[in-house]
Amino acid sequence: MALLYTGSLNRDLQAWISSLRTGDARALARAISTVENRAPGWSDLLKALFPYTGHARVIGLTGSPGAGKSTLVDQLARLYRRTKNPHSVSQDARDKGGAPDSHESVTVGIIAVDPTSPYTGGAILGDRIRMQDHFSDPGIYIRSMATRGSLGGLARATADVATVLDASGRDLIMIETVGVGQDEIDVVRLADITIVILVPGMGDDVQSIKAGIMEIADIFVINKSDREGAERVEREIRALQSLATRNDRWTPPIIKTVASEGKGTAELAAAIAQYEAHLLKENLVLRHKAHNWEQRLVEMLRDAMLDKAHQQLSDGNVARYAAEVAEHKRDPYALVEEIVGKLDKKT
Amino acid sequence: MALLYTGSLNRDLQAWISSLRTGDARALARAISTVENRAPGWSDLLKALFPYTGHARVIGLTGSPGAGKSTLVDQLARLYRRTKNPHSVSQDARDKGGAPDSHESVTVGIIAVDPTSPYTGGAILGDRIRMQDHFSDPGIYIRSMATRGSLGGLARATADVATVLDASGRDLIMIETVGVGQDEIDVVRLADITIVILVPGMGDDVQSIKAGIMEIADIFVINKSDREGAERVEREIRALQSLATRNDRWTPPIIKTVASEGKGTAELAAAIAQYEAHLLKENLVLRHKAHNWEQRLVEMLRDAMLDKAHQQLSDGNVARYAAEVAEHKRDPYALVEEIVGKLDKKT
Repeated sequence: MALLYTGSLNRDLQAWISSLRTGDARALARAISTVENRAPGWSDLLKALFPYTGHARVIGLTGSPGAGKSTLVDQLARLYRRTKNPHSVSQDARDKGGAPDSHESVTVGIIAVDPTSPYTGGAILGDRIRMQDHFSDPGIYIRSMATRGSLGGLARATADVATVLDASGRDLIMIETVGVGQDEIDVVRLADITIVILVPGMGDDVQSIKAGIMEIADIFVINKSDREGAERVEREIRALQSLATRNDRWTPPIIKTVASEGKGTAELAAAIAQYEAHLLKENLVLRHKAHNWEQRLVEMLRDAMLDKAHQQLSDGNVARYAAEVAEHKRDPYALVEEIVGKLDKKT
Repeated sequence: MALLYTGSLNRDLQAWISSLRTGDARALARAISTVENRAPGWSDLLKALFPYTGHARVIGLTGSPGAGKSTLVDQLARLYRRTKNPHSVSQDARDKGGAPDSHESVTVGIIAVDPTSPYTGGAILGDRIRMQDHFSDPGIYIRSMATRGSLGGLARATADVATVLDASGRDLIMIETVGVGQDEIDVVRLADITIVILVPGMGDDVQSIKAGIMEIADIFVINKSDREGAERVEREIRALQSLATRNDRWTPPIIKTVASEGKGTAELAAAIAQYEAHLLKENLVLRHKAHNWEQRLVEMLRDAMLDKAHQQLSDGNVARYAAEVAEHKRDPYALVEEIVGKLDKKT
């Protein structure tokens, strides 16, 4: 693949990307921060990295709080680190000097999408114990991401960070999200493989939680499956599945795990491999990626348009307009039409 | 207040709004559907309704699944229905023929923001038992809203539906959301009063759930407070509160309820009244509304810009571009810049 942008890159950016591609953790961390925070140059950076992407598998994991996602992700990461990399594409990338370590085993990137609070000053789960646990293994890179504000873009920002990890040569990227809201669904649906984690005994509203995420699961996990009620959860999943038809001839398997004891992790990895084989066999890999890019392009476009709208409307103006609307001196619907209309006339 | 748009309204729209304002449930339902689905004319409808808005109190309630939100909302609705309306503004609106019923008691609108699933064919909680329960009371109008797709706009759509209910003359609007993700926070933060509902014994990740919503709560409710652990939840809230300072000199009270038995509902209503009195005393009502409109204006602007972006990009084009990006034949970042750039040059 041609490195489309190299010619026009400035030398700093080129050096940065080289460091990142040879596995420099600081260069990687700086690139992720730049992209996550939309710091100056983030767009040029992503453009420059894009040609190096497309090698990594991206696995999205979501489930209710307390479902044991982090433990499960840890178990999977450990297992993959003990696995030889079977992907010739990744091998190819390594030959070009793009691998972050010299081992033959799979390299892993983990993006933990966490809630934030001004009270606690940032991502709460960021400094979880497991981060220290893996600290000595450069083959596992863990990054926490904060939930973004009402301007949204969390799914897009997460996808962009995954792009950076992909370009850095990671073979496998796991994105875990806390919670099962629309945000989380948007985040994990951009993955190649989506895993939904349920636990027995979730309480009254378990139907409603599951419903929102049923259709995005390629694989179901019932974690803490030694608890009472695991069979009932499985029956409920089967019942909902019987109502649905996927258009890719895949029936999401249900894997029972006890992540805290490492039980079921190998079975889960096998299910992941089976789903990948299915995608390959049915020639669905590109179609799947194209489908994800459709959603991502629309979100990127929305963000870009919003930036443009903000250029029309400085913060001070927003506050003034909002005050006028609150006092009923100004109609908000007419105001927005006016602002968008103005955009047309500029050059 | 002048009815700014009446002069230029077409007769159908005028008749529709008159019906809606005199309490016609079908006219109201049709207006809500039009706004929720962005059906043709939704924007003109909202513009026409805006002059009639601003009377209703909007209460947002959020909490984890299983926290008992619906039961609590029901209890509050029942209590308010037994309450004389103390709001002269609403009385004024009624004098103009805008009230949906002729009773002196407070009229209530409930918006239940629910997850959806293709599996179940729509909003699951939509037909909950309580809807039948209240069916005979025209003073309570209940509407379920589905969680919208990745194009977002859920907060905005919910706010627009609240606008319709407000214009229809409802005195009190309660918005309840399932879950505590960013979406839910965005939805309830547009309310005048935000209530966060917690329950004892939520499991391992309770810290992380609570953190995201701590700062939006004007009032905390510990529901199912007869369960073990209620005191611990209260201590945790107090501990987090001690770290924070609000800029409105209000310390969110913690109300213990057992909604299923109606315990604590009156205390909650009293806390709501106290917070309202505080807002009035400190002259914060307008500032609060202006702050909400700031966020809402930005979201409206984003939606309008996205519509504009879609005009540039027909669905067929998105699919084609996405396929090209998936095959690495096209750089998505350059593509979006190109599309947004084109917008400038059009007139």
